[in-house]
Amino acid sequence: MADSLVQAKHQLAIANRIVSYEGIIDAFGHVSMRHPTDPNRYLISRSRSPEVVEPSDIYEYTLDSQPVRPLPAGIQGYGELVIHGEIYKARPDVNAVSHHHGMAMLPFCNVADELVPLYHMGAQIGEKVPFWDSRDEFGDTCLLVLKPEEGASLARALGPNWLVLMRRHGATVAGRNLTELVFRTIYQYRNAEVQLMTRSFGVALQPLTPGEAKLASERNLMPKPQARAWEYWCTRLKKAGEFPAPLKASKIRATKGKRRR
Amino acid sequence: MADSLVQAKHQLAIANRIVSYEGIIDAFGHVSMRHPTDPNRYLISRSRSPEVVEPSDIYEYTLDSQPVRPLPAGIQGYGELVIHGEIYKARPDVNAVSHHHGMAMLPFCNVADELVPLYHMGAQIGEKVPFWDSRDEFGDTCLLVLKPEEGASLARALGPNWLVLMRRHGATVAGRNLTELVFRTIYQYRNAEVQLMTRSFGVALQPLTPGEAKLASERNLMPKPQARAWEYWCTRLKKAGEFPAPLKASKIRATKGKRRR
Amino acid sequence: MADSLVQAKHQLAIANRIVSYEGIIDAFGHVSMRHPTDPNRYLISRSRSPEVVEPSDIYEYTLDSQPVRPLPAGIQGYGELVIHGEIYKARPDVNAVSHHHGMAMLPFCNVADELVPLYHMGAQIGEKVPFWDSRDEFGDTCLLVLKPEEGASLARALGPNWLVLMRRHGATVAGRNLTELVFRTIYQYRNAEVQLMTRSFGVALQPLTPGEAKLASERNLMPKPQARAWEYWCTRLKKAGEFPAPLKASKIRATKGKRRR
Amino acid sequence: MADSLVQAKHQLAIANRIVSYEGIIDAFGHVSMRHPTDPNRYLISRSRSPEVVEPSDIYEYTLDSQPVRPLPAGIQGYGELVIHGEIYKARPDVNAVSHHHGMAMLPFCNVADELVPLYHMGAQIGEKVPFWDSRDEFGDTCLLVLKPEEGASLARALGPNWLVLMRRHGATVAGRNLTELVFRTIYQYRNAEVQLMTRSFGVALQPLTPGEAKLASERNLMPKPQARAWEYWCTRLKKAGEFPAPLKASKIRATKGKRRR
Repeated sequence: MADSLVQAKHQLAIANRIVSYEGIIDAFGHVSMRHPTDPNRYLISRSRSPEVVEPSDIYEYTLDSQPVRPLPAGIQGYGELVIHGEIYKARPDVNAVSHHHGMAMLPFCNVADELVPLYHMGAQIGEKVPFWDSRDEFGDTCLLVLKPEEGASLARALGPNWLVLMRRHGATVAGRNLTELVFRTIYQYRNAEVQLMTRSFGVALQPLTPGEAKLASERNLMPKPQARAWEYWCTRLKKAGEFPAPLKASKIRATKGKRRR
Repeated sequence: MADSLVQAKHQLAIANRIVSYEGIIDAFGHVSMRHPTDPNRYLISRSRSPEVVEPSDIYEYTLDSQPVRPLPAGIQGYGELVIHGEIYKARPDVNAVSHHHGMAMLPFCNVADELVPLYHMGAQIGEKVPFWDSRDEFGDTCLLVLKPEEGASLARALGPNWLVLMRRHGATVAGRNLTELVFRTIYQYRNAEVQLMTRSFGVALQPLTPGEAKLASERNLMPKPQARAWEYWCTRLKKAGEFPAPLKASKIRATKGKRRR
Repeated sequence: MADSLVQAKHQLAIANRIVSYEGIIDAFGHVSMRHPTDPNRYLISRSRSPEVVEPSDIYEYTLDSQPVRPLPAGIQGYGELVIHGEIYKARPDVNAVSHHHGMAMLPFCNVADELVPLYHMGAQIGEKVPFWDSRDEFGDTCLLVLKPEEGASLARALGPNWLVLMRRHGATVAGRNLTELVFRTIYQYRNAEVQLMTRSFGVALQPLTPGEAKLASERNLMPKPQARAWEYWCTRLKKAGEFPAPLKASKIRATKGKRRR
Repeated sequence: MADSLVQAKHQLAIANRIVSYEGIIDAFGHVSMRHPTDPNRYLISRSRSPEVVEPSDIYEYTLDSQPVRPLPAGIQGYGELVIHGEIYKARPDVNAVSHHHGMAMLPFCNVADELVPLYHMGAQIGEKVPFWDSRDEFGDTCLLVLKPEEGASLARALGPNWLVLMRRHGATVAGRNLTELVFRTIYQYRNAEVQLMTRSFGVALQPLTPGEAKLASERNLMPKPQARAWEYWCTRLKKAGEFPAPLKASKIRATKGKRRR
């Protein structure tokens, strides 16, 4: 396995742990990234809660959300893989995707209020936060995004944006890279928390102007603040004993051997 | 003691710890399961907070909530055993019951608002969440469900549903098995948290349609998501050092010997 | 030092730690108990946050809030000792007192809403929760209860009740013994949290009837539930490494020797 | 390096950790203090999250926010240094400054509600909490305070007060010394939390009178309560394993040698 893939799996496991540790994903939800060298593949954990994902849990999928190699016996993939695959298909600029049911986001999945950036850290929600309602095209479903056409519909609703709210379900977030994705996921969520609190005042919200949002978002996504936030989240994982161990080269070879049999 | 009983007690201790660790039960509340091989008995801890329950704390009761064997000297049972016994009597399909006073559920025990499923994970609240008011049949009481007729009345209010809200008291939850019970207890609670937040918007709630709720609930209760959530909760207990040790065969024999004297 | 006093100091240190660990007291606030054998004295820590109180921090005071023996050099007592002393004077049935600024209680110290029991565990707030306003008798002060006449005024406001809310300041709680005091302090606070949440519905509250409150409070204060809650709180302290070590006999003698010099 | 500087860096690292541990600062925000012996310099960490700041991360700056010695290769300073430098310039009585985006403060950065002292611990917000809006003088910006003229404008808005709310951004707090700064930062935040909760009652707030606020603030800032709170926060850091190690004399010399090369 190439070094870049070993490293990518470790980074992806870290990202899974961060969004869990920071309180946004519980037992359900998932985080993926595009393959570091093959843009026609993406990496995602087998069906496990992000809080417990190890680098060795991560498998490769085609953009049609088929495993590149058959999954080992007893291993199952997530049900909602098409959320990831269809967004990677539709958005070549997107290289990482998260899907979650964070509690503070859920009220906004049930009411008509649009999320707006209320402080500079919330500017990453982007110019618009579109809604997607599974009822519109598919009627009564179990709400999950299971079929390729459902994933494609969600990707269309996301459009050129970075966050789409799914009615009575949750949120899907896109990023140009994994750090940016984690940053967006967390600070969009914080902005939703602020909007929830501010709404209780019963006065009109005073969001950032489009110009402010653009400037603040560009600033926040520069390397220095990105590196600072990543160091912070990783240190918190380490202190809590939650930082995932990297795959060892020997272990990787052995595992690959086994899988090939 | 048969293996299935040893295992059941361990699973029940785990279930007790999970609902505590996930923030739904504090010092009070309890979790029970039907005996794994004798449907006319159920298992429940002696009177202890679920957070500290060990497999060795668990005793067998008849469906009339009488201990199958006299409790050892100094050991007392819960006061509200009839909640469990009367539901097992009335509902042969129910094999696990929890009772709690989770904070986010309590506002709904005081107002006329009915709980409705606001996201797919909340679909397990079922088609209807009935209320039970101890005043209706019993007038002024200490609110606890202590007498067989009070337990039977609560079981009637529950009817064919999976959650009953007890006015000025708390919630009682039923499941077909222990994992499902824990899953229902936790996600019904999360749904109540979402309903509390969403209500602050002062607009009409937009719940799942009955069709969506049915499909989502069936999906959530399938083996894969059930196993994934159970692994997640157990891992969290283990990381926190809260996972209960199983009964050791030798210890069981010794303990049984002592109790028989 | 008599065994009962050694034990009392340990229990009081535990009580201090519990109300901190359960989130009600932060850096400020205090917990006291009447001397186990001399009703004309009470025990309270030197000026330290309850979260860090050790048995060796606890000193004896007269009911006029004077130290029975001069405090060692460099040791200072709390500024608001008269809260405790004046209540012990006025209420021979009270043997333990806590004073706190718990966040969920503070909104009720600023608005006219009276706290009412909204679930059975909240029944211990008692028949009435009186208000005390330092402005009424003393005009502009620093809000603290520093002078004997301020303490006496607060004790009069408490009257025969078990909780008094102090305008723009906090709460003072009384109990017949230390376990009951901790139980009252925690569940009065939980009831305030429920009232805060329930109020957001904008409908009339439906409290317990006086008969229900009396029966529920009597039930909750019986030995079995009291012991169960105390075990729960102590176990939580132990798991967190926060359970205070008891005074060792040898250390006590040595310490006493030093203090007498 | 003089002892006072070694000690100051340790104290500043502690202060950084406290405001993080107590939940007010996350990945972003910063805490500084004036140089202990040279009032024309101030100390602040390199660009890192306060939760991970070590004494060795702290550098000296002029009041024009230029590093006194060139930063080592690869080390970057915070972007918003001018917040600190310009306040130290404008306010000789201020010897410590914090800047944060604490969640409970943010709603007040978006609505017209002025923060008022609602309990004695909130009295440190001072007589007035002014607003600063970057739009007024600078139009659309990224919201951050990056240019000297932006810092000077913010310092003017702060005026003789101790807290300034920055529209759609966060809060900046001033103190006469580091302990006072931490105390102000934390209890201003707690007061904002109380104001948020109290507002949900929809009735007029009943703040402290100016006389009460003055007396309470003076009392809270006396050495005894200041020492008690500082002990409490430090003990919490220690229990959590977050207390920063002091710089060792030998390490300091070695480091200084390296930096001079």
